[in-house]
Amino acid sequence: MSSSELLGPVSHVVTAGVATFADELVAQGVPVTRVDWRPPMPGTEADLADVALDARRIDANALALQRMLAAGAELVDVRPAREVLGLETGQFLHAGPPITWDRASGPMRGALIGAVLLEGIADTPEAAEAWLAAKDNDTNSAGPDLAPCHSRGGVGPMAGVVSPGMWLFELRDPGSGRTSWCSLNEGLGKVLRYGAFSPDVIARLQWMAEVLGPTMQRAVRRRGPIDIKAIIAQMLHMGDEGHNRNRAGTLMLLRELLPAMIEGGEEAGPLADVVRFVSGNDHFFLNLVMPACKLAAGAAAGIEGSTVVTVMARNGTDFGIQTAGTGDRWFTAPAHTPEGLFLAGYGPEDANPDIGDSAITETAGVGGFAMAAAPAIARLVGGTAASAVATTGLMYEIALAENPAFTIPALDFRGTPTGIDVTRVVRTGVLPQINTGMAGRVAGTGQVGAGLVTPPAECFTQALAALAELAREAAQAEARGAARATARDTGNHED
Amino acid sequence: MSSSELLGPVSHVVTAGVATFADELVAQGVPVTRVDWRPPMPGTEADLADVALDARRIDANALALQRMLAAGAELVDVRPAREVLGLETGQFLHAGPPITWDRASGPMRGALIGAVLLEGIADTPEAAEAWLAAKDNDTNSAGPDLAPCHSRGGVGPMAGVVSPGMWLFELRDPGSGRTSWCSLNEGLGKVLRYGAFSPDVIARLQWMAEVLGPTMQRAVRRRGPIDIKAIIAQMLHMGDEGHNRNRAGTLMLLRELLPAMIEGGEEAGPLADVVRFVSGNDHFFLNLVMPACKLAAGAAAGIEGSTVVTVMARNGTDFGIQTAGTGDRWFTAPAHTPEGLFLAGYGPEDANPDIGDSAITETAGVGGFAMAAAPAIARLVGGTAASAVATTGLMYEIALAENPAFTIPALDFRGTPTGIDVTRVVRTGVLPQINTGMAGRVAGTGQVGAGLVTPPAECFTQALAALAELAREAAQAEARGAARATARDTGNHED
Repeated sequence: MSSSELLGPVSHVVTAGVATFADELVAQGVPVTRVDWRPPMPGTEADLADVALDARRIDANALALQRMLAAGAELVDVRPAREVLGLETGQFLHAGPPITWDRASGPMRGALIGAVLLEGIADTPEAAEAWLAAKDNDTNSAGPDLAPCHSRGGVGPMAGVVSPGMWLFELRDPGSGRTSWCSLNEGLGKVLRYGAFSPDVIARLQWMAEVLGPTMQRAVRRRGPIDIKAIIAQMLHMGDEGHNRNRAGTLMLLRELLPAMIEGGEEAGPLADVVRFVSGNDHFFLNLVMPACKLAAGAAAGIEGSTVVTVMARNGTDFGIQTAGTGDRWFTAPAHTPEGLFLAGYGPEDANPDIGDSAITETAGVGGFAMAAAPAIARLVGGTAASAVATTGLMYEIALAENPAFTIPALDFRGTPTGIDVTRVVRTGVLPQINTGMAGRVAGTGQVGAGLVTPPAECFTQALAALAELAREAAQAEARGAARATARDTGNHED
Repeated sequence: MSSSELLGPVSHVVTAGVATFADELVAQGVPVTRVDWRPPMPGTEADLADVALDARRIDANALALQRMLAAGAELVDVRPAREVLGLETGQFLHAGPPITWDRASGPMRGALIGAVLLEGIADTPEAAEAWLAAKDNDTNSAGPDLAPCHSRGGVGPMAGVVSPGMWLFELRDPGSGRTSWCSLNEGLGKVLRYGAFSPDVIARLQWMAEVLGPTMQRAVRRRGPIDIKAIIAQMLHMGDEGHNRNRAGTLMLLRELLPAMIEGGEEAGPLADVVRFVSGNDHFFLNLVMPACKLAAGAAAGIEGSTVVTVMARNGTDFGIQTAGTGDRWFTAPAHTPEGLFLAGYGPEDANPDIGDSAITETAGVGGFAMAAAPAIARLVGGTAASAVATTGLMYEIALAENPAFTIPALDFRGTPTGIDVTRVVRTGVLPQINTGMAGRVAGTGQVGAGLVTPPAECFTQALAALAELAREAAQAEARGAARATARDTGNHED
């Protein structure tokens, strides 16, 4: 059947969804405008309608975006977690939503074992494991106190385990005074955050606490605050996307710190070691992008009626999100396993499910959302230059804003897609694209590759359901208030 | 008239040149393959034919490309020009083809005046100018000895003036042992190479000779050779194209030198000054890209029958090129004036014609040829991300090879177009695209902007004519040799 038989005389057709129909029209010479359309996630129509009707939503999201885009990020100090957070021996923070030892994945267990060894709580991995497992049977017994980094206003890459003796970058938004933090990056390969805990891993962490942290502290204090947001803006012009590629960012951080390090009277040997360590680790700056993004995403937290995502985080077992309108409630589902490229000797069967707080970068509009800025990433995570551009293009569909501070030269300086909207994700079925490292599923392995992953859809449908429930409550409260006001106005006072 | 009336039944048409015909065919539903075709430069048909028939050409160009692509580039030392080149007081090198004071442009005169002041030959700009002008009237009189940097195997950006007391980077190709050199970069704005010669310009050059040069020398000697070619490969993945954007390259150079600087027992104050100077000048690494490119392009020099361009350089008055098959002969024509964006307070009327040896970057396949690697450059020179990609695409038409060592992520790691072929330039009319800084036309001004420029077509038609003449001579010599051989074979000895 030709288009004219089907539709009668037509001058132009707008098509949505499957391409076959549009292709047939084009073949018949009918001008076609294609609109990208996907069906909403199943069973979400009622919740989508209730949230769409929420009278608070538009203003709430505008406020969330305004705060998110306005947030600055300065590195203001480098201090041990014991000082920054009052963390005590036996207390550990970790990536993602809350987790207990019995449900923890291999890399999370490995990182906790390493942290217990580092803190001197146990002398052997076996003893550390026994101590860590003890808590599960009796919450009053010995064993660890576990809490998410996000619950303390910070972030940790991969396992994200933080113990009192580890040093942290402290960042501050100069506008609001809000602060955030992240651990110092250990480098790649066999490192604690990927679940390794061998003696060389622990020795490196000790050097970081004894030399790297204090040297960075003296340099930052001597120099004064470093504008991390400005460096992120620059790195997006230099082939980095701020999650899996942080090469230019690392060099720019070093540039900012060097004169103060040199003039600070540091001993030459240890200082040269610090410079070699930082400049030899292209991911060093990731641990500054992450808390900067936490400051941005967190700026939107606690705005009633807002459907903006403020946290995406994984503990290696579950993926969890939080939204601006639902406070610190987690919406969790089993984490997907990333797909990508593997280090020599490893394959898909070695990969642990998605892990780490580093998805805060995508939550704030960089990382996978800024793939178009980093075509070289294709070599690391699999894909082409065109797919990198397409990924960023798709993310504009689920983001509420474009960040004027973070621009992409290859898109003629269009701002990165920023502020994920739960309703857009559910309505389009387009899931946030996350660039990530891959940890070995067996504790002690370390990194096995890097790739791409999406959150489970259930995180977003659950969040939408909660937002819809709150919207209905708000509407009812509004209705009751209106009824009372009407009653007052007509003089029918009951009391 | 429809295509079937004009051509009879057709299944597929290949079109070349103007688009109108192809568009009409497409409208009539005829499958079309478009071939980009342009007429050759006028009057060049006979020369093109003679060069095309040169039996030596294919092998000669293959050898030229093989040598150009194989050339490495290591920074091996930093020394004064007096030591490196045996340059004596009163001798000056300059950018581009040979020039005399009377034909020199404003910025070239300004830079020479500054160099005369720096060398202590005169105390005032007026006295320096008088001394510089004296030589023109009587070649035996006092006055400067001027020669192109290229004539001594090196390169200089913009005016490219080198005097005995200036320090040079020395580079070496580890494979062939060939060397090259370039001055140290002064930064942007009011600087000698843009024709400025005020007291602060001279004071900066003195500091460079007293502190910067010796500090770099000690660091390079302590560390050992630095692989500049490897850094260029990396910078092309980090948004630099190596001519007008050298931001990542500068940071990577600093990374390589820092540990040696720190461990070398340098005084903290001067070392911090050096680090601030280098890291505060995003173009510092240009002066290492240039001699690395000179090593590559120069590797093809002196191959009879090769039509590959080995030098493109400008002195602010003339643009000159050299080719592999024509030795050190210059083919010159009046330089174009760049078009682009201007610094505040300046406009097109302030711009001097094209100046500097920095077009060696394009000669070796980076700079304007690698525009697609640096979409952010569009903001500096005018243009869009798409035009940057299109520029690199066009340069593949006049280049003989793609450099596997210098790849462009946005083109899925395609190698940069490398090895400009004089015959391809003349046959297509496509001129090499050069990114460049713009100097003020009045001596003493400094930089006024940055933009894009092409060489005059005459450089290429002249070079083609010379190559054609040499091809005819070679063919005649070959014919005479063949005739003599035939005469010998048939026993008809005349002697």
